Amino acid sequence: MTARSVEQHAQHVAGLLAPLHERPAEEIPLGEALGRALAADVHSPVDLPLFRNSQMDGYAVDAASIASIPAVLPVRGVIAAGPAGTTTHTPGTAYRIMTGAPIPDGADAIVPVEDTEAADGQVRIERSRTAGEFVRERGSDVRKGMLLLPAGSVLAARHIAVLAAVGLQRILVRPRPRIAVITTGAELVDAGTTLHAGEIYDSNGIALASSARANGAEVVSITRSGDDPAEFRTLLAEATTTADLVLTSGGVSMGDFEVVKETLSPLGGHFGHVAMQPGGPQGTAVVDGTPVLNFPGNPVSTLISFEVFARPEIRRAAGLPPTEPEELPLAAAVTSIPGKRQFLRARRTDAGVELVSGPGSHLVAAMAWADVLLDVPADVTSLDAGQLVKVIPL
Amino acid sequence: MTARSVEQHAQHVAGLLAPLHERPAEEIPLGEALGRALAADVHSPVDLPLFRNSQMDGYAVDAASIASIPAVLPVRGVIAAGPAGTTTHTPGTAYRIMTGAPIPDGADAIVPVEDTEAADGQVRIERSRTAGEFVRERGSDVRKGMLLLPAGSVLAARHIAVLAAVGLQRILVRPRPRIAVITTGAELVDAGTTLHAGEIYDSNGIALASSARANGAEVVSITRSGDDPAEFRTLLAEATTTADLVLTSGGVSMGDFEVVKETLSPLGGHFGHVAMQPGGPQGTAVVDGTPVLNFPGNPVSTLISFEVFARPEIRRAAGLPPTEPEELPLAAAVTSIPGKRQFLRARRTDAGVELVSGPGSHLVAAMAWADVLLDVPADVTSLDAGQLVKVIPL
Repeated sequence: MTARSVEQHAQHVAGLLAPLHERPAEEIPLGEALGRALAADVHSPVDLPLFRNSQMDGYAVDAASIASIPAVLPVRGVIAAGPAGTTTHTPGTAYRIMTGAPIPDGADAIVPVEDTEAADGQVRIERSRTAGEFVRERGSDVRKGMLLLPAGSVLAARHIAVLAAVGLQRILVRPRPRIAVITTGAELVDAGTTLHAGEIYDSNGIALASSARANGAEVVSITRSGDDPAEFRTLLAEATTTADLVLTSGGVSMGDFEVVKETLSPLGGHFGHVAMQPGGPQGTAVVDGTPVLNFPGNPVSTLISFEVFARPEIRRAAGLPPTEPEELPLAAAVTSIPGKRQFLRARRTDAGVELVSGPGSHLVAAMAWADVLLDVPADVTSLDAGQLVKVIPL
Repeated sequence: MTARSVEQHAQHVAGLLAPLHERPAEEIPLGEALGRALAADVHSPVDLPLFRNSQMDGYAVDAASIASIPAVLPVRGVIAAGPAGTTTHTPGTAYRIMTGAPIPDGADAIVPVEDTEAADGQVRIERSRTAGEFVRERGSDVRKGMLLLPAGSVLAARHIAVLAAVGLQRILVRPRPRIAVITTGAELVDAGTTLHAGEIYDSNGIALASSARANGAEVVSITRSGDDPAEFRTLLAEATTTADLVLTSGGVSMGDFEVVKETLSPLGGHFGHVAMQPGGPQGTAVVDGTPVLNFPGNPVSTLISFEVFARPEIRRAAGLPPTEPEELPLAAAVTSIPGKRQFLRARRTDAGVELVSGPGSHLVAAMAWADVLLDVPADVTSLDAGQLVKVIPL
């Protein structure tokens, strides 16, 4: 049995997950759009401001009437911000006006209240202004039809602000991939219970679900199967009705009770070894039209399988930018097994990238302490201190 | 009226918001902990692995019995992963064993199945192993009582994985600050309706709520008041019963209808000018024991007020790391108004930091296109191309 390379398996997975990328855009209320990716360009349906308005609290005048100062003008009324009829300016007079209120037709400048003194229905103006000062012209911020935000924009508060300002209530975004997680293994038990001999706490369900959510997915279910194929088949049938992608952990290796492999192999599933560590045993299948990725059961192998094979596709389906690898210097020399691509748990330090553990796939504490995976190519057996190495941010 | 500096106002706000930082830790299910900050150190309640188990699918043996190969050993049984009684090894024999299954007492090495051939109740072993190979000793990953994660850790999937692996169901995290948003202004209307003369869409409610959520807060309400003080007082009374912090927009400036200032000044609110642009008019109050920050109503002023005064405190209260300013070169020369600290909308480009708009506080589209605020000190009036400048990432 020849092992696939990581690249070969990743390509195979990408092909299986193509349907995730073809789901139609989803229309959602703007209030729920934080962190979502626009599915289409957004053009403004309106001018912004929609009407010529005052940038200051003060007086609306024509600049010609205050060319020589001090100027004393009769005040014809007060214009507040808010729904209003049209007012018309008469040269040589002023309206008291509030920030954001519509400027009378014919007025062309605003005198800030700080430069004025009002008494007996008149305002005394201490400083000249040129035409246009403190006037916000219609469309000076946004023109109707203008591209506000391109497709693919991942929405932060400031993007939501402009979409709200032009009056949009609902927007089209990339749909979140719906993911179901099934963990397998007779040894798994719930947190909060006392362990008996041979049992371990099931951490892969919550870990895969958290990983999926952190990368833009919606988790529709987290279930667990023992080593009984009937039980696993039932959970899988439920998962494929609600999910776009099913992730499983465990049951893919060389043992006698590999429930995932035994169930899915006859259904056309592919199980084999990928030349990587951790995460060597990998499986894939398509069940009722839904892609299923079968990760090994060791918690670290599971998480790294997710990072390497699932994360890029899930992020792309959700419209999120890829996690770019970085090049950083190595703090100390590292040796690696020939023929296997290693993903070593490491962290950034002032001295460079430093390993937090050996290659053991069961060291879940070290995985928690890592903030990068050191990606060592299959044909590399040693890396020197100070050498630039490729790391994948976690 | 002397304007406060940004630093003075920020310090005043920090004092008012001290109660946010004193809220007790919250106990939540681990499944909801993604992105939350641990409120206390977490030590492991158990050893991990909790029992000595096999790292491979294969055969449990004693290394001495396979010192000379090939060795042919009788197979005494099969040990699967899962709840199990204790088994005892007899030298010169083997158990078939699965990954994760408990190793018989007295066995000290695992021979991977790849190096074996089984037939007629015997296994032929082709390769020697030294004591300890492929054996996961109890506690080799995590020791009971060991510090797993320190207080303050912001939980990613890999942290949740280790907490689940040691059997924790619920954890103590920093509480999310509960924030109520009230926008004010008779000119504001809902998105999705047709604007009449003098009206604008209310974008500050959704923008402040999104900003708060993006920084670890829970938004308990978003409401809107016209210019009637009774209406504002009613909304404020409701907000202060459910929120730890109330954010308002509008009604703080120099106009005749400043509902926020008029309502809160008699209640001990502080309103005045901060030497910054945008965002000059600022107010603060404490109502029924709840701090209230009163931002100006221009959408860009509102967002920048949030970034400068609210974001640092909200993140700290939620246990999230501060957003660190960066130093980047300026793409082109910039001039600035003396006496006011400017927060200019800018973006990172290959040529350096580049302004996306002038200083106008109403340019909400430019705010959306920015990815940093260029922070220009009050006493600086010009910055040269290529000069390193301070920027605040958005």
